[in-house]
Amino acid sequence: MGAEKINIAIVGSSGYTGGELYRLLVNHPRAQVTSVTSEKSAGKPLTSIFPHLAGLTNLICEPLDAEAIAKKADFVFLALPHVTSQEAAFRFHQLGKKVVDLSADYRLADPTVYEAWYEHCHQHPELLNSAVYGLPELHREKIRKASLVANPGCYPTSAILALAPLVKKGIVDLKSVIIDSKSGVSGAGRSPSLVYHYPEVNEGLMAYKIGTHRHTPEIEQELTALAGQSVRVSFTPHLIPMNRGILTTIYATLNAAVDTSQVHALYHEFYRNEPFVRLLAHGEFPNVRNVRGSNFCDIGVYADRRTGRGVVVSAIDNLVKGASGQAIQNMNLMMGFHETDGIKVAGMFP
Amino acid sequence: MGAEKINIAIVGSSGYTGGELYRLLVNHPRAQVTSVTSEKSAGKPLTSIFPHLAGLTNLICEPLDAEAIAKKADFVFLALPHVTSQEAAFRFHQLGKKVVDLSADYRLADPTVYEAWYEHCHQHPELLNSAVYGLPELHREKIRKASLVANPGCYPTSAILALAPLVKKGIVDLKSVIIDSKSGVSGAGRSPSLVYHYPEVNEGLMAYKIGTHRHTPEIEQELTALAGQSVRVSFTPHLIPMNRGILTTIYATLNAAVDTSQVHALYHEFYRNEPFVRLLAHGEFPNVRNVRGSNFCDIGVYADRRTGRGVVVSAIDNLVKGASGQAIQNMNLMMGFHETDGIKVAGMFP
Amino acid sequence: MGAEKINIAIVGSSGYTGGELYRLLVNHPRAQVTSVTSEKSAGKPLTSIFPHLAGLTNLICEPLDAEAIAKKADFVFLALPHVTSQEAAFRFHQLGKKVVDLSADYRLADPTVYEAWYEHCHQHPELLNSAVYGLPELHREKIRKASLVANPGCYPTSAILALAPLVKKGIVDLKSVIIDSKSGVSGAGRSPSLVYHYPEVNEGLMAYKIGTHRHTPEIEQELTALAGQSVRVSFTPHLIPMNRGILTTIYATLNAAVDTSQVHALYHEFYRNEPFVRLLAHGEFPNVRNVRGSNFCDIGVYADRRTGRGVVVSAIDNLVKGASGQAIQNMNLMMGFHETDGIKVAGMFP
Amino acid sequence: MGAEKINIAIVGSSGYTGGELYRLLVNHPRAQVTSVTSEKSAGKPLTSIFPHLAGLTNLICEPLDAEAIAKKADFVFLALPHVTSQEAAFRFHQLGKKVVDLSADYRLADPTVYEAWYEHCHQHPELLNSAVYGLPELHREKIRKASLVANPGCYPTSAILALAPLVKKGIVDLKSVIIDSKSGVSGAGRSPSLVYHYPEVNEGLMAYKIGTHRHTPEIEQELTALAGQSVRVSFTPHLIPMNRGILTTIYATLNAAVDTSQVHALYHEFYRNEPFVRLLAHGEFPNVRNVRGSNFCDIGVYADRRTGRGVVVSAIDNLVKGASGQAIQNMNLMMGFHETDGIKVAGMFP
Repeated sequence: MGAEKINIAIVGSSGYTGGELYRLLVNHPRAQVTSVTSEKSAGKPLTSIFPHLAGLTNLICEPLDAEAIAKKADFVFLALPHVTSQEAAFRFHQLGKKVVDLSADYRLADPTVYEAWYEHCHQHPELLNSAVYGLPELHREKIRKASLVANPGCYPTSAILALAPLVKKGIVDLKSVIIDSKSGVSGAGRSPSLVYHYPEVNEGLMAYKIGTHRHTPEIEQELTALAGQSVRVSFTPHLIPMNRGILTTIYATLNAAVDTSQVHALYHEFYRNEPFVRLLAHGEFPNVRNVRGSNFCDIGVYADRRTGRGVVVSAIDNLVKGASGQAIQNMNLMMGFHETDGIKVAGMFP
Repeated sequence: MGAEKINIAIVGSSGYTGGELYRLLVNHPRAQVTSVTSEKSAGKPLTSIFPHLAGLTNLICEPLDAEAIAKKADFVFLALPHVTSQEAAFRFHQLGKKVVDLSADYRLADPTVYEAWYEHCHQHPELLNSAVYGLPELHREKIRKASLVANPGCYPTSAILALAPLVKKGIVDLKSVIIDSKSGVSGAGRSPSLVYHYPEVNEGLMAYKIGTHRHTPEIEQELTALAGQSVRVSFTPHLIPMNRGILTTIYATLNAAVDTSQVHALYHEFYRNEPFVRLLAHGEFPNVRNVRGSNFCDIGVYADRRTGRGVVVSAIDNLVKGASGQAIQNMNLMMGFHETDGIKVAGMFP
Repeated sequence: MGAEKINIAIVGSSGYTGGELYRLLVNHPRAQVTSVTSEKSAGKPLTSIFPHLAGLTNLICEPLDAEAIAKKADFVFLALPHVTSQEAAFRFHQLGKKVVDLSADYRLADPTVYEAWYEHCHQHPELLNSAVYGLPELHREKIRKASLVANPGCYPTSAILALAPLVKKGIVDLKSVIIDSKSGVSGAGRSPSLVYHYPEVNEGLMAYKIGTHRHTPEIEQELTALAGQSVRVSFTPHLIPMNRGILTTIYATLNAAVDTSQVHALYHEFYRNEPFVRLLAHGEFPNVRNVRGSNFCDIGVYADRRTGRGVVVSAIDNLVKGASGQAIQNMNLMMGFHETDGIKVAGMFP
Repeated sequence: MGAEKINIAIVGSSGYTGGELYRLLVNHPRAQVTSVTSEKSAGKPLTSIFPHLAGLTNLICEPLDAEAIAKKADFVFLALPHVTSQEAAFRFHQLGKKVVDLSADYRLADPTVYEAWYEHCHQHPELLNSAVYGLPELHREKIRKASLVANPGCYPTSAILALAPLVKKGIVDLKSVIIDSKSGVSGAGRSPSLVYHYPEVNEGLMAYKIGTHRHTPEIEQELTALAGQSVRVSFTPHLIPMNRGILTTIYATLNAAVDTSQVHALYHEFYRNEPFVRLLAHGEFPNVRNVRGSNFCDIGVYADRRTGRGVVVSAIDNLVKGASGQAIQNMNLMMGFHETDGIKVAGMFP
């Protein structure tokens, strides 16, 4: 393979996004994981947490000691719970390491918004200024130069990518935006609770946190920036009996009489050079099964003449484009690698 | 049990709604199935199609011979494909039998609307006048007197029940109504095709027939009647990897500054005497798992002050309240039985 | 319906078997639940634990106070964890109540066997003598006269029913019996843990407790009684990504050259009057989907001439025939009701 | 990456194994797919059959024209139905191409056995002699030299790998071998039928083809060779509601009093240099979720002192180690590549 590889630390490796980072990095041509942390499993092999990685790694989980890790790693992924990540990102930043933070802690530029939605103070508001929101399709150049990238939430990735062309072009009524998202259960993390107990989820389906989900301000921040004016959205997440995947269905009133072909052309123009956005053909709509395990975001569009409304549907794998894959995409940009290194893999179907 | 039982024919008994009619009627105190038809399985036991009914029935499937069936049955359920049902309903009607038609053939009062959406002529438009749309919560008294009841579609049942109080009271912008529905796979029927092949559906999720689904005019017909003015809605169905259940999430702009308590009170008033509508407590939202196998429709409401939008979520079992259970509810009304006879059963959880 | 109903207490009502007892008793002609206990949810409505029962009950959970409950209830179902049930059964027995205990505490006649497998002492070994193992197909007459019935485990129900005719007739090598069982996740109860966290179970499949599962001695006790000599079996349970159902595949070397027809005839003879055992036709094998929600046990048999081995497959719903349904069947027998009262219901398919 | 790549044809690319071959070859360092055939989809892009591959390939499906394909491809994978593959393998062989045949057509060395189980004549029995059974763990050296490799069936891969050490060492009673296998639905292929219609499979579980499944002779052929004497097994496949994965539970009477440690040591010795067999630690057993998407076969062993029986459990992904991954492993061997090229990837969990 020739090229030298950088050393990667995955901080907080016991959750699904941590495991997924490892899975995707196994075959990365420029990076190798040399350090993984887990407080609960410190001293144990990573494969005791993730038996599917047996035969591929001998790493032992370490406790989170920023200085020790900084000595071994060139680049740090933080896969910690929000709030916890605030300090960790700050420490690695101080130690001169480039960081992709998969938590929500550095996504919201305005600390008062963070505090309102997350009900915690932000201990390092000064660092928010240098953090870049890691959606490459919108902020690629800033990401290249960033040392701290806040990796977007899974729902926001699916919603913002689906809405960006419409909002940027100003062809929808910004007050009319409705985002109805459906997520697989891995999005809820790996901590067991009755809500995610198998027989409670399987053959079940519910909406939750209607109007109050914490991904809302993140979506609004990005749409507001695209629109150049304040945008408020209705966002409803749903829990679907499947492991992975988010399908987001978006409704917005079109400002003018555009047809599906015109909307399609607009999206084509917007995304034609994007390596991970696949605009489906006219009349086709995405299915999460087609992005499972891959970093693709599939998008389908429809302009409904009867109601004057645009309908856009996007599909991502919440653990890949919605988390770990996008984090690697950001790392690739931050490190000057090919953007697609290690993540231009085929999804797994069926 | 004392009371004499009427004899029931299930015409078109090989699909899921046919099987579900039988399941629910097994313990009906006033009715017993004495005749089942299936062209493909004529001459074979019903249990060859539905092994789960073994030990509960010895019925043999017959071909559809209206006169022969009319001699044996007091009441007829038609569980045939649309178009096919047109003639069958007409025949049994002529033979003086009361009929609940589970197909779409007699749901749309205006035959031109039927023809536009179903792309077939209606052979008995005159009979449309006497057909009653079988949603008891809206048309109970008419159903009691009807001899032909058009059983509502599964999606429309979930959508209309969720919207009726808002639309009837005129507190939403009628142009703003968006209906995002998620259905289990049994809603697609029992005919195998690649789209419903297990590995294609499982761990998958998609929207389909965006803006074009045939249940749209049925929803609009009923909402228009409730509103007293024309209503057009955006309706998007989704296919969910589960057997049963529809969750419908509805968005509509509120005309005035009402809060969730007020919306809740409105729904409480509207449905407080309904045996099969369960309005959830303030802050709670339905899950299809809680209605699985039962005739209940669960509803939760939310008024989002941030966006000025009402969000209503409903859950039904598509094969029960969305089809066979509601059909029996209609039969109970048409026959003067207790409305809840045979269908006040607990859902199956988990 | 005329007949007076007895009052039922469900002690330990917050687990799946408790909920299932309630579901099945809703339509029982001779019994009604008047008392439910739950320590954790004392003071809360039963529907707060089981929202699917909303509209069907107003019962409030009580703490377990045997004397208070004994005053209100004519009959007691214990759906408590094992060990806990020892004392509860004893108390209600002392108070003169008939009891069906769904736990394992009174299943094993020999307290040393109980202590060896459950690693707890038995506090009331004297009561073991009067407890009857509640498998009606084997012990119907004893159950009728019993005041304490130990309801069989889910796996043992499926295994013993599948094996009884072969073992009783002495046509298999008793040393050759292998029981390979596959269970849905509800069999593991309602307590969340990582093992049953949705994304860990879904699309997964594993064997567990190989050679060490606690249902083994229960199976061996009953087979030993049937054979008139000691029987030891290999028993392997597996966890299947589905909510309900046990499929048990049994292998045993046939003593003589019998063919499938002969084995089938033997089973037919053995079970022909049983209301809840459905012997499938020659060449057919059961599927758990056909017993879901019902009290049936489906059985298919095969004699393999190539290997000289009999293969028997049984299917039950672990929560019905494997727990709550069988408990009601036992109650019906103990109370002199029709054995099928309230439980001759159709399973739910799909 | 420097090394030149060979050109690959996938003949019969519309089924799941065809798609999986493509997925795995996307990142193969030494091979690239240049030709795909499908009669039904000839002229259409491969992505019309497999939308998950969009953005990764522009290939157009061709009809099967052996000469045309032979001109473009250095190596041929046949993913055709059995019987059809007979002629195709012969043709490509004649044209001097190395072939891995994923069908059953060249697996059974004895054509009379083939004809007895597959109920078709073999048109090229002479070619059976040069065909090598492609289980690298048993036949690595022969595979390296072969020009036609018969890729093993999914069930046989899981069964033979689990049994080989026991049988080879002669420590089990060869008459006692029982193989109870559980497979995900993708093993049944991509042709829709009622049996695999989603609502019929989901929440269902059944055994099928008891004692008569066509993979039986393949298992017996390999075990017989290992044992040096004729072996007959009882083999029962089961259909599990999941997309991928086979878990095989094996029972065999141990000849002598060996304990689990000894059996474990035997397996360790047998497989310690194998790149794709992962022997689990003493006391651990495999779960298909840990091999999903990967080429690993996980094995756990247990010696049951109570019954004198060994229990071995293996897990594979039926589409990878059970089909396409193993096919690539065979290609790697046949072409002199590193055996793990392109297939030492992490499985996808969850």
